[in-house]
Amino acid sequence: MRMAGSTQTVGNVKTQFFTFAEPPGELLLESGEKLGPITLAYETYGRLNDEKSNAVLVVHALSGDAHAAGFLEGEKSPGWWDDMIGPGKGLDTEKYFIISSNVLGGCKGSTGPGSTDPRTGKRYGLEFPIVTIKDMVSAQSRLIESLGIQRLLAVVGGSMGGMQVLQWMVSYPDRVRAAIPIATTLKHAPQQIAFDEVGRQAIMADSNWKDGDYYGGPLPSKGLAVARMVGHITYMSDASMAQKFGRRLKVEERPSKFGADFEVEGYLRYRGDNFVKRFDANSYLYITKAMDYFDLLAERRIQDVFGGVRARVLVIAFKSDWLYPAYQSQEIVRACKLAGVDATYCEIDSTYGHDAFLLEVEEETHLIRHFLRTAASNGDDERYGRASNGIRAQNHP
Amino acid sequence: MRMAGSTQTVGNVKTQFFTFAEPPGELLLESGEKLGPITLAYETYGRLNDEKSNAVLVVHALSGDAHAAGFLEGEKSPGWWDDMIGPGKGLDTEKYFIISSNVLGGCKGSTGPGSTDPRTGKRYGLEFPIVTIKDMVSAQSRLIESLGIQRLLAVVGGSMGGMQVLQWMVSYPDRVRAAIPIATTLKHAPQQIAFDEVGRQAIMADSNWKDGDYYGGPLPSKGLAVARMVGHITYMSDASMAQKFGRRLKVEERPSKFGADFEVEGYLRYRGDNFVKRFDANSYLYITKAMDYFDLLAERRIQDVFGGVRARVLVIAFKSDWLYPAYQSQEIVRACKLAGVDATYCEIDSTYGHDAFLLEVEEETHLIRHFLRTAASNGDDERYGRASNGIRAQNHP
Repeated sequence: MRMAGSTQTVGNVKTQFFTFAEPPGELLLESGEKLGPITLAYETYGRLNDEKSNAVLVVHALSGDAHAAGFLEGEKSPGWWDDMIGPGKGLDTEKYFIISSNVLGGCKGSTGPGSTDPRTGKRYGLEFPIVTIKDMVSAQSRLIESLGIQRLLAVVGGSMGGMQVLQWMVSYPDRVRAAIPIATTLKHAPQQIAFDEVGRQAIMADSNWKDGDYYGGPLPSKGLAVARMVGHITYMSDASMAQKFGRRLKVEERPSKFGADFEVEGYLRYRGDNFVKRFDANSYLYITKAMDYFDLLAERRIQDVFGGVRARVLVIAFKSDWLYPAYQSQEIVRACKLAGVDATYCEIDSTYGHDAFLLEVEEETHLIRHFLRTAASNGDDERYGRASNGIRAQNHP
Repeated sequence: MRMAGSTQTVGNVKTQFFTFAEPPGELLLESGEKLGPITLAYETYGRLNDEKSNAVLVVHALSGDAHAAGFLEGEKSPGWWDDMIGPGKGLDTEKYFIISSNVLGGCKGSTGPGSTDPRTGKRYGLEFPIVTIKDMVSAQSRLIESLGIQRLLAVVGGSMGGMQVLQWMVSYPDRVRAAIPIATTLKHAPQQIAFDEVGRQAIMADSNWKDGDYYGGPLPSKGLAVARMVGHITYMSDASMAQKFGRRLKVEERPSKFGADFEVEGYLRYRGDNFVKRFDANSYLYITKAMDYFDLLAERRIQDVFGGVRARVLVIAFKSDWLYPAYQSQEIVRACKLAGVDATYCEIDSTYGHDAFLLEVEEETHLIRHFLRTAASNGDDERYGRASNGIRAQNHP
């Protein structure tokens, strides 16, 4: 069905790669270490207008990648946010130039722990430096510059993508006209850290992990699968699991005494086993750690978090999301308001849990389409001198 | 401080062991398999009165054991529910004869997968049959009989203990005068199954697990520790974690790049590492599976679940418990009401999450003390011919 509606997809796409080529060709990381050269995988959909004012950056969650829409050669499934990106969709490729960037530390074409360290000719493994959400955004800013874009119309993302959105607002206040953080938080809370830590422990408990030095040998697949299973539970809700699986038993015969009896067990195992085919365990460690370190409130008062931010903001949360509960999104709104930032809050009544940001397409389409239209026209206002920067400046003398 | 108040504890205790000695000396399990001989570890506190009418059975949760109160020789920490069991406490040992029974399938003195199979002279391992909550309760009923007790004043337990309480009501309606299921459910829901399954997968992913045949060799400690860490997250709440840990960093130096930075990580690792010293990984598999199979609603209408039950019931739930949410306790109450069973519901406003059943001592003491007093005096009524069995019988012709 999805294939049949191909006129509504962006069609065939190719992942591209951007490598910092200009000197110094490396990034000073938050940790103080330098890393380079750095490659980011990215895709673009739609066309950049002559004014270069219609660029929207899409940033992904923990296990995402640059392939957000359309079809890669030989693949039957479209990108991870294909429902939202395309002609006439929420992120309308007939109006906007969509850039989807993979994160630093990832394993889908960008520089990460599985990349070759030019100093040694070997894979980085745990020699790869700790990277943060801020570092990821710094690298993305180089990509955006390389595309000749001074200012993004918007940055959009959910979950860890939402953290990148918030970091963009803070790190590059002059380069973001609108921001859409979805199902995210100002800082990782201890329960979120705890779930990440369990995933990391599962990976590091795998005897194949070998302190991250497993490339070329057997992979820590079992540990990574367990990490992914934990993740999937947190992405759903009690209610959505009850609706999807109930206590239904699997049809297949039990392979063993502790085989998957229940459908929910089979689902988790399937998700875990699939994930290890496409994701690097070390990247899982580094990226979850980046999320855990994320804390825009660190050593700041809440009213100062978005001081100087000029973007208008649409914050979206979901009622049944217990991993990134709505109160955390409300805290983002509060921080915006206290800083005089124009923020709108929408809480979508969904039972899908955290996964809702990928599933509540209709509601998100409606919200984002309208918001981007306003942001785009507001951008025009600004060029004609009706910007409200003066007013905002009063809030941040 | 706890030691100083020794007059309020039951003092020094010893774990006892009951083995089915009479023929056939074995149990027909729900699976159809027979198991025997069976030993149950148990402890008793207080004195059984001459009428044998003051016995209260305490049943434990997943990782509990028979040692619920007082001090074992050489140990500094008291039993797991010492706050509730003792002279003048909620389960008052000056009034009641408390029996605390370990579960079948466990690893703390009762027959389980780590026991020696008399047929082979080797440890059972995965040759141990699947046991259910009903099987655990069947074994306990033999223990209660062996103590000469025809009818229990009450059965009390939280979490998996609560499932045993509900099963006692259903399996032995004439032998339970009062029941206190705490923070539990009529049936394991898919989210609960999912968390258990992740724990099992973590154990089975450990290369030391060897299909359960690890006795005498290195133990699957890393996998079991991960399972326990997952468990601990689900026992707390977002709020209690925020209060207990916040984003505070550990004071110690980082042992490595993915060492424990945050206090919450250190806590989980500590809990995980401690658990493997006292618990058998195979028992973890069997007991979680017993919980997952628990379903009093299976092939029954909700009004029939407690048909014929004569106990009066006190159902306790906790507001922040998201592992066994209050709505599941409300469903127990509903099933009681529909069957004409006298049920009282109390929802305690706690931020401790599922752990609240071990921590909200003051509230529970108040509720349970009052409820047991009423149940005990009601028992007297019954002997004097003022029982309401006739009325109840009308509900279940």
